[in-house]
Amino acid sequence: MESSQIQVGVLGARGKVGSAVCTAVEDAPDLALAAAVDHDDPIDLLVSSGAQVVVDFTHPDVVMDNLEFCIDHGIHAVVGTTGFDQGRLDVIDGWLGDAPTTGVLIAPNFSIGAILMMRFAALAAPFYESVEIVELHHPNKADAPSGTARRTAELVAAARREAGCPPVPDATSTALDGARGAVVDGIHVHGLRIRGLVAHQEVVLGGVGETLTIRHDSLDRVSFTPGVLTGVRQIADRPGLTVGLESYLDL
Amino acid sequence: MESSQIQVGVLGARGKVGSAVCTAVEDAPDLALAAAVDHDDPIDLLVSSGAQVVVDFTHPDVVMDNLEFCIDHGIHAVVGTTGFDQGRLDVIDGWLGDAPTTGVLIAPNFSIGAILMMRFAALAAPFYESVEIVELHHPNKADAPSGTARRTAELVAAARREAGCPPVPDATSTALDGARGAVVDGIHVHGLRIRGLVAHQEVVLGGVGETLTIRHDSLDRVSFTPGVLTGVRQIADRPGLTVGLESYLDL
Amino acid sequence: MESSQIQVGVLGARGKVGSAVCTAVEDAPDLALAAAVDHDDPIDLLVSSGAQVVVDFTHPDVVMDNLEFCIDHGIHAVVGTTGFDQGRLDVIDGWLGDAPTTGVLIAPNFSIGAILMMRFAALAAPFYESVEIVELHHPNKADAPSGTARRTAELVAAARREAGCPPVPDATSTALDGARGAVVDGIHVHGLRIRGLVAHQEVVLGGVGETLTIRHDSLDRVSFTPGVLTGVRQIADRPGLTVGLESYLDL
Amino acid sequence: MESSQIQVGVLGARGKVGSAVCTAVEDAPDLALAAAVDHDDPIDLLVSSGAQVVVDFTHPDVVMDNLEFCIDHGIHAVVGTTGFDQGRLDVIDGWLGDAPTTGVLIAPNFSIGAILMMRFAALAAPFYESVEIVELHHPNKADAPSGTARRTAELVAAARREAGCPPVPDATSTALDGARGAVVDGIHVHGLRIRGLVAHQEVVLGGVGETLTIRHDSLDRVSFTPGVLTGVRQIADRPGLTVGLESYLDL
Repeated sequence: MESSQIQVGVLGARGKVGSAVCTAVEDAPDLALAAAVDHDDPIDLLVSSGAQVVVDFTHPDVVMDNLEFCIDHGIHAVVGTTGFDQGRLDVIDGWLGDAPTTGVLIAPNFSIGAILMMRFAALAAPFYESVEIVELHHPNKADAPSGTARRTAELVAAARREAGCPPVPDATSTALDGARGAVVDGIHVHGLRIRGLVAHQEVVLGGVGETLTIRHDSLDRVSFTPGVLTGVRQIADRPGLTVGLESYLDL
Repeated sequence: MESSQIQVGVLGARGKVGSAVCTAVEDAPDLALAAAVDHDDPIDLLVSSGAQVVVDFTHPDVVMDNLEFCIDHGIHAVVGTTGFDQGRLDVIDGWLGDAPTTGVLIAPNFSIGAILMMRFAALAAPFYESVEIVELHHPNKADAPSGTARRTAELVAAARREAGCPPVPDATSTALDGARGAVVDGIHVHGLRIRGLVAHQEVVLGGVGETLTIRHDSLDRVSFTPGVLTGVRQIADRPGLTVGLESYLDL
Repeated sequence: MESSQIQVGVLGARGKVGSAVCTAVEDAPDLALAAAVDHDDPIDLLVSSGAQVVVDFTHPDVVMDNLEFCIDHGIHAVVGTTGFDQGRLDVIDGWLGDAPTTGVLIAPNFSIGAILMMRFAALAAPFYESVEIVELHHPNKADAPSGTARRTAELVAAARREAGCPPVPDATSTALDGARGAVVDGIHVHGLRIRGLVAHQEVVLGGVGETLTIRHDSLDRVSFTPGVLTGVRQIADRPGLTVGLESYLDL
Repeated sequence: MESSQIQVGVLGARGKVGSAVCTAVEDAPDLALAAAVDHDDPIDLLVSSGAQVVVDFTHPDVVMDNLEFCIDHGIHAVVGTTGFDQGRLDVIDGWLGDAPTTGVLIAPNFSIGAILMMRFAALAAPFYESVEIVELHHPNKADAPSGTARRTAELVAAARREAGCPPVPDATSTALDGARGAVVDGIHVHGLRIRGLVAHQEVVLGGVGETLTIRHDSLDRVSFTPGVLTGVRQIADRPGLTVGLESYLDL
């Protein structure tokens, strides 16, 4: 164990996501995999192994117990498990009140590219008359548009409202049903389903004589690991509860 | 007058399209602008100027008279004027019966790029599980999807039917209205309206592990002139009535 | 004259750029074209017409005289004319010392899209292992790569240096001359020259399993006018000398 | 064994490519995996298992022996192994002289998308003034530009020569080394190396006012399997030696 390495425990270590996190931690020279824990293993391993930061990709049913344990033992937690509502966040905040140097990061999306795309889209939107969103996924996806596309539309719409932008121009008077996409918060969103694709999104912004296009292509599910590692590396300097990886990126 | 140049007359020469054709003819070393005729001018100018080929971008009300005159005088005609139905085509065919060496080319679209895009999409479609169409235009456009996008969908669908392809895969079970676009002949078509754009279309095809994308960007309305000149140069070798520029491209 | 409109004078009003600015000012409801001045007109027109802000797209030989006149008369200046070195900027700074409420904005590039692209590329670059730049222009362009591509490469390289990023990975051991592009400050830059294009640039960033692409398409030279109008609208609140439109965009 | 299924043997069945072929054959309702043979297994298994078509992804050192065995036993062969020169092709042709109903397909590239891209690029090239090629790969690739990009350039150049096209226009007079890419047969080719990418290529064609872009994205190495299966399904109808999958696609 090099003293300069951050000791990392992984909860849900044998799941698809958790095992990818284990591999990424082992491959990173500044991190060490102290404990790989799954539901059959005693959680005390986190303490005995000296884990300083825990990564949790488990299940909504067990994540609150995991977090209470971590906070009790002064272990920072980077959490990708879903199912947090305001009630749960309030409980965690309460626990952290007694552990002022411990950090908890809860993020619905660890893809740095997706976060940058949403942020840049919101920053650019007030400067353009038009903005639309195209998301492209494999054809086994059940919902349309994607959650990321909806969230992008909401962020873009909010940025435009705040800047006092008028609605996007659209002179369409004759259209086939669906031709102009779904409308989320005033923003048109189009979903393609294409075999061979994974998860892709394009935000197209346009003004007189020019367009700006921001495209994110997620070609492999491991693309979330750099975001998790960013969380692991920075959490010691960010005590308290943080929701969303955005603030860690200093944009 | 160089003897090797084709002598070209333009009908509708002071219209937006016609004047662009005049300029393109003047700029082409192998063509000469013999007569630029608009509605105030005597059509006899075509004969006295020695025009061998006429380009007609006029109006449905006058184009039949123009064509009768041209065929009567053995002048080939390249026609971009709209409004031809089967009845009109039959009449022209009749006139040409008495003029076996004269050619008439009637094309709804002189953009070589649009024709290539449609042709390549139809050729590729049977090899892929998925295919969808995205068209992008300026926000003053009244109809959605564009005529070219509809036509592409029909050609793609026909090619897939002929090859015995199953329907495109789509597991969408929860969707906002319009999220999956309009469906034309079984093919999903999406229309974006963005300030700053002119006329653009992308056909996205996908199979296991790969995608093929064919994109046409029309950035300036002069993009139809190379198609018109292709017609002018070849029409002497293609007597009779031809509908659509496709067959001139030898694809 | 509506009292709420900003009164705008244009210097170089009959030039290609200046006349586009005049049109844009006339079309904007919150702006009024007070004076359109070219080299044959007396510059006093700016004063007699009540211009509050002047837009200068003239010539390096006359722009310093123009600025001295504007600053002397308390007129703000938005300047797209080229040819400013540090010496000239120091002179202007001196003049502004005696006019503390007057603003001068000098910008080499008024395209908001180009500025956003460069800014986003620099923000994103430290999060990705790889980044390269592709610029695409019409084939009459004399230099390669474009000035914007070089500038983007410098900004990206600086952002990576500051974040302590290693060099971009590249295992190329056998290559044709030029296959990997030009290298500007460690960043590979590729220039395409294609008939039909205007001015386009794509920044491609990639990390494990994902890529982020930022693309700017300038389809018409009027695309700089929104940037000029942004300068006109904000300059009264930004006294002193500002170089570059960036700081006006509050990114 | 369903009598309507084609019985397929795979040579090199435990290699990375061969095992993907085995899976694809097992997943295809019209095909049956009769024999999966690797270098430790007796090749006679092909005969005893009743294989009608063999797929060979082995090694240049053994592929000729494999082919002699297949042709001797009247088994068709679809071959992705490399290392064929004219001498080897002549030998195979000789063997096939005594087996007039047996087919051998040798293809350097089984990606249908790559083949379509090259074909469409060559078809379109004579209609455009400009054409350039951009290939994008992962940064571990040793050569630049890619073999597919070079081959595309050669096909495009040949099509333009045959059509009598002039050289592509390029007014570049001041350039950094490499800024305009490598030049293959008069066509500019640019290679990007980006982490997260697999194998991608874009052919950009442009004429007055319009561009046509043909892009192939290979996101997963399994993308070659549809091409292999196309070969397996058609080879019984194509006796003799065929080089390249192109002719099987009926373009």
